[in-house]
Amino acid sequence: MKIPVGILGATGSVGQKFIELLKDHPWFEIKALAASERSAGKTYAEAVNWFMTTPVPDAIAGMSVSACEPGLPCKIVFSGLDSSVAGPIEKAFAEAGYIVVSNSRNHRMDEDVPLLVPEINAGHLEMVKKQKYGKGFIVTNPNCSTIGLVMALKPLYNAFGIEALHVVTMQALSGAGYPGVPSVDILDNVVPYISGEEEKMQIEPLKILGNLQNGKVEFANMKISAQCNRVHVSDGHLESVSVKLGKKAAKNELIEAWNNFSGEPQNLKLPMAPEQAVQYFNEPNYPQPRLHRMLGKGMTVSVGRLQECPLLDFKFNVLSHNTIRGAAGGAILNAELLYKKGYLDG
Amino acid sequence: MKIPVGILGATGSVGQKFIELLKDHPWFEIKALAASERSAGKTYAEAVNWFMTTPVPDAIAGMSVSACEPGLPCKIVFSGLDSSVAGPIEKAFAEAGYIVVSNSRNHRMDEDVPLLVPEINAGHLEMVKKQKYGKGFIVTNPNCSTIGLVMALKPLYNAFGIEALHVVTMQALSGAGYPGVPSVDILDNVVPYISGEEEKMQIEPLKILGNLQNGKVEFANMKISAQCNRVHVSDGHLESVSVKLGKKAAKNELIEAWNNFSGEPQNLKLPMAPEQAVQYFNEPNYPQPRLHRMLGKGMTVSVGRLQECPLLDFKFNVLSHNTIRGAAGGAILNAELLYKKGYLDG
Amino acid sequence: MKIPVGILGATGSVGQKFIELLKDHPWFEIKALAASERSAGKTYAEAVNWFMTTPVPDAIAGMSVSACEPGLPCKIVFSGLDSSVAGPIEKAFAEAGYIVVSNSRNHRMDEDVPLLVPEINAGHLEMVKKQKYGKGFIVTNPNCSTIGLVMALKPLYNAFGIEALHVVTMQALSGAGYPGVPSVDILDNVVPYISGEEEKMQIEPLKILGNLQNGKVEFANMKISAQCNRVHVSDGHLESVSVKLGKKAAKNELIEAWNNFSGEPQNLKLPMAPEQAVQYFNEPNYPQPRLHRMLGKGMTVSVGRLQECPLLDFKFNVLSHNTIRGAAGGAILNAELLYKKGYLDG
Amino acid sequence: MKIPVGILGATGSVGQKFIELLKDHPWFEIKALAASERSAGKTYAEAVNWFMTTPVPDAIAGMSVSACEPGLPCKIVFSGLDSSVAGPIEKAFAEAGYIVVSNSRNHRMDEDVPLLVPEINAGHLEMVKKQKYGKGFIVTNPNCSTIGLVMALKPLYNAFGIEALHVVTMQALSGAGYPGVPSVDILDNVVPYISGEEEKMQIEPLKILGNLQNGKVEFANMKISAQCNRVHVSDGHLESVSVKLGKKAAKNELIEAWNNFSGEPQNLKLPMAPEQAVQYFNEPNYPQPRLHRMLGKGMTVSVGRLQECPLLDFKFNVLSHNTIRGAAGGAILNAELLYKKGYLDG
Repeated sequence: MKIPVGILGATGSVGQKFIELLKDHPWFEIKALAASERSAGKTYAEAVNWFMTTPVPDAIAGMSVSACEPGLPCKIVFSGLDSSVAGPIEKAFAEAGYIVVSNSRNHRMDEDVPLLVPEINAGHLEMVKKQKYGKGFIVTNPNCSTIGLVMALKPLYNAFGIEALHVVTMQALSGAGYPGVPSVDILDNVVPYISGEEEKMQIEPLKILGNLQNGKVEFANMKISAQCNRVHVSDGHLESVSVKLGKKAAKNELIEAWNNFSGEPQNLKLPMAPEQAVQYFNEPNYPQPRLHRMLGKGMTVSVGRLQECPLLDFKFNVLSHNTIRGAAGGAILNAELLYKKGYLDG
Repeated sequence: MKIPVGILGATGSVGQKFIELLKDHPWFEIKALAASERSAGKTYAEAVNWFMTTPVPDAIAGMSVSACEPGLPCKIVFSGLDSSVAGPIEKAFAEAGYIVVSNSRNHRMDEDVPLLVPEINAGHLEMVKKQKYGKGFIVTNPNCSTIGLVMALKPLYNAFGIEALHVVTMQALSGAGYPGVPSVDILDNVVPYISGEEEKMQIEPLKILGNLQNGKVEFANMKISAQCNRVHVSDGHLESVSVKLGKKAAKNELIEAWNNFSGEPQNLKLPMAPEQAVQYFNEPNYPQPRLHRMLGKGMTVSVGRLQECPLLDFKFNVLSHNTIRGAAGGAILNAELLYKKGYLDG
Repeated sequence: MKIPVGILGATGSVGQKFIELLKDHPWFEIKALAASERSAGKTYAEAVNWFMTTPVPDAIAGMSVSACEPGLPCKIVFSGLDSSVAGPIEKAFAEAGYIVVSNSRNHRMDEDVPLLVPEINAGHLEMVKKQKYGKGFIVTNPNCSTIGLVMALKPLYNAFGIEALHVVTMQALSGAGYPGVPSVDILDNVVPYISGEEEKMQIEPLKILGNLQNGKVEFANMKISAQCNRVHVSDGHLESVSVKLGKKAAKNELIEAWNNFSGEPQNLKLPMAPEQAVQYFNEPNYPQPRLHRMLGKGMTVSVGRLQECPLLDFKFNVLSHNTIRGAAGGAILNAELLYKKGYLDG
Repeated sequence: MKIPVGILGATGSVGQKFIELLKDHPWFEIKALAASERSAGKTYAEAVNWFMTTPVPDAIAGMSVSACEPGLPCKIVFSGLDSSVAGPIEKAFAEAGYIVVSNSRNHRMDEDVPLLVPEINAGHLEMVKKQKYGKGFIVTNPNCSTIGLVMALKPLYNAFGIEALHVVTMQALSGAGYPGVPSVDILDNVVPYISGEEEKMQIEPLKILGNLQNGKVEFANMKISAQCNRVHVSDGHLESVSVKLGKKAAKNELIEAWNNFSGEPQNLKLPMAPEQAVQYFNEPNYPQPRLHRMLGKGMTVSVGRLQECPLLDFKFNVLSHNTIRGAAGGAILNAELLYKKGYLDG
């Protein structure tokens, strides 16, 4: 008997990716699809403008789409809701006793909501006990551009400390949802602005890398400067990073730290967990979105081009798949952790 | 009577841009086209794989292509030669009494060769008097990714000083020449590596911004860290920059410094000079390659998104047209300066 | 004293192109900008999401945007309205005495409305005398994919007759307006469907090539089969065409027919008219959108790759700029013809 | 014990795809890699510029690359050689007793060489008995743009006959090999020319659809007109087709013919065979390269937009994956057929 799950915002781009990734999941089974009023009452096939590269799963196509209101026949809801509506809907589901595994930004910075990357801060899960929703609770995963960065930072942070960092992103179009960026705006172009993105990248890592003390996260102490750009790539956020470490380190020590990095998902052999959490490439022109975004089924974070930085200590590149590791896949990994840690037993 | 000029590497991508920009020049007239052995003896129309968006000028199509050897019927040669061959050829032309206006990197760092951006360091022209070539000499313009950067830096450098800076580039495909980057390598992709580019960006600005003392350039004293990426754009290098200034400054002071910046090209009303050397945009999502690369006929450098940097002092974006301001157009501006300053009179 | 003109749908993509093309027009001067309720009352700079590659003209930026209702201080209105609203608005303007030069499809097939391509059917202008609007009237230009085709057909039609033709289009993204096609739908893709496009291509040429008899157009008698695709190109519709002629012809006769083709715009030296209406290329891989769409300032139609067709008689490729020749530029040419023919004198 | 196979041209783009598709093959095991002199003697990892999106298989990376000469430890050689060298090399291997399964065009039209598409003309295999190479022989698969077309034609040909057809292709960049098309030639562009392609499309289907009579193929009798274009797509050739059938048919009969089509690969359950050989889509904007090229692991051919044609009888769109179904995958399917039919037993 699989655990019944629902998807909020099932017709959107993150919702579609949830369906694609969950369709053969060993533990979870999609039992409810919810979307906006406009879609409610239709079959999924009627309601969706499907643009994944695998077809709508047969079992899903005929399912009826519900409104985004409690009453769905499931225990967990994955939320791919747009942030313009996610806040109160997710709260309503938590209050109704659902476990809300959200990809939206609305509750990420709430004091009692874990901003979870299971390889990094599985222990933050405890925070949900402070939530006041009764049996339900909310966990979140970070912004799609944050997650590749923190996966690359964590091994360095553990080994050497990090005092400051500078990051410039080149982000994929799928990160803007659907319809997202008009083609005439990005063909033969780069757009050096993504609303709210730099702010998220400058604060979220501090919570994720922070220490849990008495149920509260003490934010990490480091300076972050982010500049975010949209480039002509379908999937995969590439980032140019420069870091100032807490202590001296040699190039090969950083590479070892990355290649040896693993965490709870690897220990617990969670289905969505990549064997290799972070992979370092020696090729001077790697990683590249087209070549490496699907490593570890889109869950491995790639790093390359480590060099000494004339300004800070080291510079390097990071790549991660923004709609898998950076959105739906990351959320599913969170749910798998919840299951293995007994948080679904209540 | 116009001044006769020749083009070395006339069939290559920079050579084609030289032809496009010089075809109606008020002072210069193309009288010689030189290229590799393979092309020598053919008409230009036969020899070239023309890919500019304006047609080959009629006056050029039927001209015969020469080998790259002295003996061309002109006073100035513009060099768009590949760096694998440019070094000795340019030297041979200088020794034969030609004025070599080069876009190639080979002689840029020579102690007696000016690395010239007329708005910035017109005075460096004097260095040519130290060259040992007799009547001939060599002047160079910087790398296509350097020039946008230094144009944005110079006004700040003058007003506030610059101690350090971090720059991440998103560079256009035309910068790689022809055939350059294979389409299957860049479609739906970013390549985080351009051979030799980071090294050039980290050293060239120091010479350009340096002081001439007794005929030698004292390099500017600042730390530069560069990370260079190739993106899916035809023309226009966009750069995310972060700077540490020499003294406190307010946002509006930087913007004024940029908008008020001008130099010898503007004073002398050189034909290739843009009225506005640097233009600051207030729109949060500007500048963009597709929209702004052709400002000032490709010679204006665009700046935008000035923000305080949590790490250094300020961050912002710079855009410049890499084959006009960053290559052929910049070289022509150099030649115009030579003319107006009397360096062609000898 | 220039003739005052207005633009309906001034903030849309066709509207922006009208402004770009009219800003220095020798005969016309923009005196009114009209758009939807949402924009009315704002300055143009506030109302528009400008995405042309030249800046908003200074004289336009501060103009106030009106609602699309008669009362505008001009004689001619250029309509770039969306077809969902164009029908009744254009009618209202004609009834109020305005000369409506429309790019919208709504009135194209009206019995008394000329579907005008001045090189082809300038005589059809007479039809406006049958319109019942009093002093006002409506003229239209064809669909952006039709116009390149008919420009290439007309010289053949005159010389040899045309019995049947097959055309497959590869159409640019700007043809879909703004925001138009989402980038994630077209990156690394072709979409083999454009709503209503094949129908338009199969009927409009018959009217354009038809004979005016007693004030009514007798449609040309030919079979047309069209298949329309959207490709990853910003501007420029490329079409693969195969034709069955009315009588035998040799390859070079077709080429001569194209290269010698001209009409009223060339005779009258209309400002928007290209010197060369149709240009044939001998290069086997021409014409190409990036290289040739701007020929004749976007008004020349390019043809190439003429070959015998194993099925019909000949096959070839046609290229035309969809937002200039195929939309705003074509409409302006219509207005210029109206002026020279005395239709603005009333 | 798997059957040992070798790959000729192993470092090229088709060679890489062979490796990717064969790495876990149930019947075949790669035992030899051969390439040009330049690569011979190196390990595969050293010799190759790998650009598949899955990593080089571990078992392959360390294998030594041989020259393309008989003496390889295998029974079958898959040839992905460039046509400039494939002819004599393939002949030499056949003469040395190897079974040559070639993707190159050189021997396709040889009188005794089958041009094989197992769903269509498995019986043509018999032709190899006429070859004079002793135990060795050559089989070929068609050009990448032909194969999608003939897969869509065959069901119609069987059911209704085909008298004539017109096809316009929009072909992917990977079809040009590596480095193939320069990015600056195709960004924001379509190139309406692929050398030799139209000729291949106009003749190959006649052989494939022909009848074997006394060991010789009697070519099918139909007129084909092809126009070939290169578009900005990584993989997947899309084609707009118009056909004149041998007898009247209704739309739904064509759709049934496609959806019910299967052949020997499906009967024999060949590992590379898709369950659905041809799939018809009812959605008006399908098939699309990005969405449907990977159907049936890249071996299913997609068809859509069936409409009556005003000129011939019906028009529709066809899509197939050019480097899988249209090259390496098609060749592997041929080898699988050879195995099951006992041609490897000698």
